[in-house]
Amino acid sequence: MSEIPKAPIARIIKESGAERVSEDAKEALAAYLEEVARDVAKEANQVAKIAKRKTVKADDIKLAIKNL
Amino acid sequence: MSEIPKAPIARIIKESGAERVSEDAKEALAAYLEEVARDVAKEANQVAKIAKRKTVKADDIKLAIKNL
Repeated sequence: MSEIPKAPIARIIKESGAERVSEDAKEALAAYLEEVARDVAKEANQVAKIAKRKTVKADDIKLAIKNL
Repeated sequence: MSEIPKAPIARIIKESGAERVSEDAKEALAAYLEEVARDVAKEANQVAKIAKRKTVKADDIKLAIKNL
C-alpha cells in the first residue's frame, strides 16, 4: 500500500527522541506522509498543466504546498 | 539531508498524472515530507512520554497528526 519505505520513517521518529517505535506507528506515519505527498502531487500537477508544461518542477511543488 | 528516498516520491508524483518530474521537484517534496514527519514524530514522542511509555505507538502518531 505504502510507497514510502518504513526504515527512514523509523529513523526520523527515533531521531526525535523515541526509544522504541512500534511497527504500526511506522506504518501510520508512512501512510499519512503518502497521503500528504499525493495531495501535493495532484495540486503540483495541475499547476504544471496550467503552465502547459509536461515536467513537474520544484516551484510547482512549492506552490502546491502553500495551497494545501 | 533527506532521509526519505526520492524514487518513491517520484512514483507518487507520476501516479498523480505527471509525465516528467524534475530532480529538484522530487527533492522539494521529499524535504517537505521529512519536515512533516519530524513535526509529527516530535509530537508523538511527547504523547508517549506523557503516557510513560518508551515505545511510540500508532495511536501516538494518529493523535500527533490531529494536533498538527
